[in-house]
Amino acid sequence: MRADLATRVGAVAVDGGSFTPATPMGFRLHHVIEAQDFNRGMLDQLFRIAREMESVHEQGGNRCLTGKIMASLFYEESTRTRFSFESAMHKLGGSVISTENAKQFSSVSKGETLEDTIRILNGYADIIVLRHYESGSAKRAADISTVPIVNAGDGTGQHPTQAFLDLYTIEKELGHIDGITIAVVGDLANGRTVRSLCYLLSKYRSIRIRMVAPDVVKMRDDIKGYLARHDVVFSEETSLEDVAAEVDVLYQTRIQKERFGDREEDYEQARGVYVVTPEVMARMQRGAIVMHPLPRVDEIDVAVDDDPRAAYFRQAQNGLYIRMALLAACLGADIARA
Amino acid sequence: MRADLATRVGAVAVDGGSFTPATPMGFRLHHVIEAQDFNRGMLDQLFRIAREMESVHEQGGNRCLTGKIMASLFYEESTRTRFSFESAMHKLGGSVISTENAKQFSSVSKGETLEDTIRILNGYADIIVLRHYESGSAKRAADISTVPIVNAGDGTGQHPTQAFLDLYTIEKELGHIDGITIAVVGDLANGRTVRSLCYLLSKYRSIRIRMVAPDVVKMRDDIKGYLARHDVVFSEETSLEDVAAEVDVLYQTRIQKERFGDREEDYEQARGVYVVTPEVMARMQRGAIVMHPLPRVDEIDVAVDDDPRAAYFRQAQNGLYIRMALLAACLGADIARA
Amino acid sequence: MRADLATRVGAVAVDGGSFTPATPMGFRLHHVIEAQDFNRGMLDQLFRIAREMESVHEQGGNRCLTGKIMASLFYEESTRTRFSFESAMHKLGGSVISTENAKQFSSVSKGETLEDTIRILNGYADIIVLRHYESGSAKRAADISTVPIVNAGDGTGQHPTQAFLDLYTIEKELGHIDGITIAVVGDLANGRTVRSLCYLLSKYRSIRIRMVAPDVVKMRDDIKGYLARHDVVFSEETSLEDVAAEVDVLYQTRIQKERFGDREEDYEQARGVYVVTPEVMARMQRGAIVMHPLPRVDEIDVAVDDDPRAAYFRQAQNGLYIRMALLAACLGADIARA
Repeated sequence: MRADLATRVGAVAVDGGSFTPATPMGFRLHHVIEAQDFNRGMLDQLFRIAREMESVHEQGGNRCLTGKIMASLFYEESTRTRFSFESAMHKLGGSVISTENAKQFSSVSKGETLEDTIRILNGYADIIVLRHYESGSAKRAADISTVPIVNAGDGTGQHPTQAFLDLYTIEKELGHIDGITIAVVGDLANGRTVRSLCYLLSKYRSIRIRMVAPDVVKMRDDIKGYLARHDVVFSEETSLEDVAAEVDVLYQTRIQKERFGDREEDYEQARGVYVVTPEVMARMQRGAIVMHPLPRVDEIDVAVDDDPRAAYFRQAQNGLYIRMALLAACLGADIARA
Repeated sequence: MRADLATRVGAVAVDGGSFTPATPMGFRLHHVIEAQDFNRGMLDQLFRIAREMESVHEQGGNRCLTGKIMASLFYEESTRTRFSFESAMHKLGGSVISTENAKQFSSVSKGETLEDTIRILNGYADIIVLRHYESGSAKRAADISTVPIVNAGDGTGQHPTQAFLDLYTIEKELGHIDGITIAVVGDLANGRTVRSLCYLLSKYRSIRIRMVAPDVVKMRDDIKGYLARHDVVFSEETSLEDVAAEVDVLYQTRIQKERFGDREEDYEQARGVYVVTPEVMARMQRGAIVMHPLPRVDEIDVAVDDDPRAAYFRQAQNGLYIRMALLAACLGADIARA
Repeated sequence: MRADLATRVGAVAVDGGSFTPATPMGFRLHHVIEAQDFNRGMLDQLFRIAREMESVHEQGGNRCLTGKIMASLFYEESTRTRFSFESAMHKLGGSVISTENAKQFSSVSKGETLEDTIRILNGYADIIVLRHYESGSAKRAADISTVPIVNAGDGTGQHPTQAFLDLYTIEKELGHIDGITIAVVGDLANGRTVRSLCYLLSKYRSIRIRMVAPDVVKMRDDIKGYLARHDVVFSEETSLEDVAAEVDVLYQTRIQKERFGDREEDYEQARGVYVVTPEVMARMQRGAIVMHPLPRVDEIDVAVDDDPRAAYFRQAQNGLYIRMALLAACLGADIARA
């Protein structure tokens, strides 16, 4: 399985889980498809490079990707995620070609397959950031692409770079990931963010997860089964106040109206049940943090924003460093030289 | 009030209205929100830098903003304005992330506030050019942004960079602004261009304004009151021919069909009343000019385009220099060094 | 007529069809409007530069267009073509301002003419790549533009850069163009790709064209007349299998559903009639190639993709080199120096 991982994510795994210095950074990725593909050693490498990227960013960026072209191939709009990737590429001196309207030259409008589109883009770009509405698309693209594919979200499937930045934020804010207690709150049924995060957390030791969700959007059995098999302690709770008092991380998520279709009643019932208010903050420990993948609607009161434990805007900022690190790792950049 | 201005636009005002050389250019802006925030000293500084930018442009641009990222955050489409800003940024070596579809990651689609969007973008961009459909949005954004906000038009409110380029064009074409007589023609009720221009002209001496508008789109009382309070002489006229003979500047505007909604009749009545034709040009003085913020429909006859007094395409070109100057001033660039 | 050509495409034609070394590359274009404007000497020059661009690309691009700005002015979406041009510009160090939504600042939405739009863009961009829905638009733009216009497709008219890359592919794959036999297959009535290619092929010697099209989309008389006048041997055939065995190039095209409007029945009758299958490939000569402008739907079986004679993805890649060459030739770049 280790060998398989190495192939899929392109890491050169040698004895004991270390990586050969295939590149000046000592870490190389081929594709970024699923959070599960990354083991703990790889996450450590990624976070080390992300920390270096914070310095690069502070110094106004560098030119280590000059001459490289990134294609933003978005089959559905997600301006925030696109901006984060494009900003990361520019900060490293690279160029971008971009569409949020990829359906127009795809199977949908003229009958072209995703595979054909990717093959053609292989001639135009050095790396492809793909956002697609169908689960499994990123894997299909990676199977035939000659340049790295980075999954920027595929349907209800995965959004691995969000999961990486979430984990990176926890490590940066708390100093460690092992041993934490985390509450995941809100839409646990549809939120791919929380799903990916659960997969990654299971790679760490002594994790406890408290799940707090309205009845109609409770965590699904597949994830619960996965956590059980990986010795993660979890429980389903109903009182956000009680949970708030005992966690290191309170990870709030938006109830996603767009997932409810015409079940308006279910949506109205689900939203507003669990809101992070100053009262909830008062229950939280001094060193704990509140996270949110954003955008938020009203599930975190704006009165909370000024609390130093409100980490969600810092979390968004970390997305830039993680994406800079991923682009550099996929393209074999030499950060030091540039 | 001087102190307040300095805060809002970030100019470092010292004794007598001069500016401390806070930057290599000797002029620094924080945000660009409203035309009124700029006093005459600041306009002089801005125009001085714009003139330098003409040289920079002639020499093929420079790299004084290399490594900087501008976000074009357009909640409504305005490709011309966006292109002008993005071209300005590229000419100075900067990078751009861009959307004309910002509603998709905004309050409208998922319920996110403008404030949250701006806070997140603060992590991705060094400057944000904002176009929004709501009056006052740019001010709201500036209130919480850690990077400069440039207002590229907010609702029926302001479009300050257009006003600056208009004024810059007058100075460049005529050699001075004090003492001019200007006719503003067309849709004076809805055109924010003319409104912003009137605010700025009131900062100059001995300005005379002749207003020529169809009945349904006459100049509103708020502007007339403002002009009166600032000792600007103005009058409302009905004969474009008579007015043409006595002005230094004839500023024509489009009757904006989109402002009339279903009042099609009113629109039809308003358009075509005042058209700049070769006959009107024949009445104009030799040294006078015709301006227009563009796009035009038929309110200036194309037969006028070849007249050397037709300044509207030169005016559009000046938009590039003004925006280069504003970006440089907001980002503290060192033009000379680059 | 030679002089006229030189004017329209900007080549400096001197005695015997050679070109003065007006630029470091020895080849300069003003505009790229129609395939017919290019004579054989010009095509040779273009292909020579495209070959140089392959080396440039292999070495990761260069900076010969640094400081130059290309405007992608697309009045209809064509992400693939846009990406190809923008990637070419970036590979040469240039910058891009881009819209796929140009109708929004055009005659359609506010009544502005194409001419006015181009005049304004002349101030913002060093070269304009224009895609428009009306035949003849590119010519209209070139007539008033002070910067080069490159036609990226105008209505049912022309798509010259596609024709150049097609011809370049033939020369590269077969080693020559004179004397080839080519089958053009599919929608010959509406496909502007095939139309432009026929114009260009007529400039070469001893060309034979086999036309294979469903009844409802047969080749139109204008092209057949043109070929006849230029001594190109052509025939209309019905058996793809028979034709496959005798050609050097099998040029397949998509039946364009969008051209049929509500004539669904005609579309259904036309599609699926001529499909390139492994069986057809078995009939083809060892050194022959299959081309396709892409996207494809099902008119080439994916089982054919792995056949080394399947040249269509290499053909798409050649589009990058051709567009790099055209941009450099229009902007007078010095490839060697950069």
